[in-house]
Order: sequence, then C-alpha cells, then structure tokens
Amino acid sequence: MNIVLASASPRRKQLLEMLGIENLKILPAKGEEIAPENAAPQELVMALAAHKAREVAEQCAADDLVIGADTIVWLDGRPLGKPHSDYEAARMLRSLSGRTHRVYTGVALVRGGETVTGCEESGVTFRELTDDEIRRYVQSGEPMDKAGAYGAQGRGALLVKRIEGDFFNVMGLPLCRLGQMLKEQGVEIL
Amino acid sequence: MNIVLASASPRRKQLLEMLGIENLKILPAKGEEIAPENAAPQELVMALAAHKAREVAEQCAADDLVIGADTIVWLDGRPLGKPHSDYEAARMLRSLSGRTHRVYTGVALVRGGETVTGCEESGVTFRELTDDEIRRYVQSGEPMDKAGAYGAQGRGALLVKRIEGDFFNVMGLPLCRLGQMLKEQGVEIL
Repeated sequence: MNIVLASASPRRKQLLEMLGIENLKILPAKGEEIAPENAAPQELVMALAAHKAREVAEQCAADDLVIGADTIVWLDGRPLGKPHSDYEAARMLRSLSGRTHRVYTGVALVRGGETVTGCEESGVTFRELTDDEIRRYVQSGEPMDKAGAYGAQGRGALLVKRIEGDFFNVMGLPLCRLGQMLKEQGVEIL
Repeated sequence: MNIVLASASPRRKQLLEMLGIENLKILPAKGEEIAPENAAPQELVMALAAHKAREVAEQCAADDLVIGADTIVWLDGRPLGKPHSDYEAARMLRSLSGRTHRVYTGVALVRGGETVTGCEESGVTFRELTDDEIRRYVQSGEPMDKAGAYGAQGRGALLVKRIEGDFFNVMGLPLCRLGQMLKEQGVEIL
C-alpha cells in the first residue's frame, strides 16, 4: 500500500515528510477545480479535496490511500485566492492588516472507491502592517504562490500575531486531524 | 553590527535563518541558569533570557545586538522541564493528554549595555493520547531534548489539536514579537 498525495504543494509534501511517512508518492491532480456555487467554506474545501483525491485515485492501485487537500483563506464572506501581481498581493495584505481572518483546509482520503472527508478551521490575526512593510514583504517574493498573499512559515511569521486552531492547517494540511482520519482507516502514522 | 543568538537551540537558529537574517552569529550562553524563586512564569523566562544575553554580550562588540531566549512549558502551576528518561517523558505526555497547557518564551535584546525584554504566552491543547501512542512517540526519540517532552514541529504535530497565540513561541522564539522588538531597536528584518 502506498500513501499518495494528490497535491503539487511543496509545503504539503514537506509536512508529510516531517511526520516520517516513508511510503509516500506524489501525484498531483491536474483537473480543473470546479467549486460548488454559494457553498460554505467548509463544504467548498471538502468538495475540492475530494475531487482532487478521486481524480488521482483512478491512476492508483485499489489499496493505495490517496490524500487530497484544499485550502482557502476567507475574509469578509469571500475567499482570497493567490495574487496575480505585486499590486494585488499588496492589496490583499492591506485587507488582512490588523484583523483576524479564517483559513479552512478540507482533507479527503480515498481508498478502494470510498471517500471520507474532514475540514479544519483556524483563525489568523495579523498585526498592523505599515505600507513599507507590505512593500518589502511583496518584494521578497514570498506572497506570489500563496492564497491570501502570505505564508505562515517564512518571513510571513513576522506578520502573524496570533493563531487559533491548528497551525499546520494554515500551512495547508491539518496534521492532527489528518492523523486521526488515517487512524480511522487503519493507518497509524504516530 | 552582528546579530548574535545566545542559544544552542537548533530550532531557534533555524527560525532566525527562516527569516532571512544574514549577519547571524551563534554564541550559546554557558552559565548556569539561575531562576528567581517563586517568580511568575513571565518574569522567570524574561530573567533567564536576559541572563543569557548579558553573559554573551560580554564577549561581543559594543554595537552587536545579542538575542537571548528562554522557554518554559507550564502546567498546574509549575514548569515541565526536559525529560531525563523515557519513563519521565511518558509521564509528562500523559499529564498533557487531553488538556491545555501554557508555553512562555522570554526574549531579551542586549546592545551597548542596555537590555530590553519581552514575553509571549501561547496556549497548547493536546488531543487525548492512548498509552500506545505515548509509547510510540517516546520511542521515536523526539521528546528527549524538549521541555514538556514534545516538539510542536515534527511528529508532535500529531498530538497538538489547537494553538492559541504565536505558534513559533511554542517552538522557542516568538517571531512576530521579536520582529517588533528589533524594529524598536532600529533593526528592520522584514
């Protein structure tokens, strides 16, 4: 049995390796992310995680266990995606400054045609950022491939005053919940 | 001007490098840690951090900026130190299981004979652990060099259900507060 991560995220790969999972394969889902309309953030990330995991499971052995995950950053009733320009990154960071937003990660496990899903929610509070700090953080390049234009690990640690919930959920994979979900599937990783 | 870390902790070094600090020197304090008696945890970690930073500052140039830090894990009104045996590690983990404890890190900056100190407090909630899980985690070797017998990063992520506060504070260095303290000393690291 292989554990297969259906994600191209280097951070998710790094987190699973940190747990010492040895038989790990990486097989990113390629399909378009089709989000259900008007869904609550929890439903949204679980649906997208399941979609990715099922797509990849079609290329895997029946007893492989496929992990799909999807993370969104949620502010004022809507998601913040990945910024497409420095300008957009700065605008996102300005909207997060001095406030608390939510991060949701959905996790889906697929094996032998069966899917189980779970979701974790974390609160993230930014300190007040100056325009200069936002400019320098954008110039560092860190915001560009990240939802909400920041990384919780890296220089972004200087922006985040407070977390409520699972820290690794903010990085893209709620490790404690994932461990429990795997355990329920008979896979002990601790 | 050098930034000097007065700590032998590989995790603190790793965190400062993650922030991209380039002119970093490591010069661990050697002196015995003399804790003030009956002190509140906040006073305790700030006193110990200042003690370490002042000791190392004596070996540094006057314009070097020395960072000292001290972390304690606090449960039921007393600190949990580093375990000295597998048995003690298991006992500590059992006492943390299914409960919330506090982690305090004191930070001291010393330059030109002046000291400023600060402290950060985080809450850490463990899920309920089985005896088997405690045994396997102890066998992994991860608990042995860590206060409270766990690491928030590493396999320990599977134990921690929830953080309230700065995650990096639990790892041994409250990065957001440190960044603000350095900024007040005229050292911008963002």
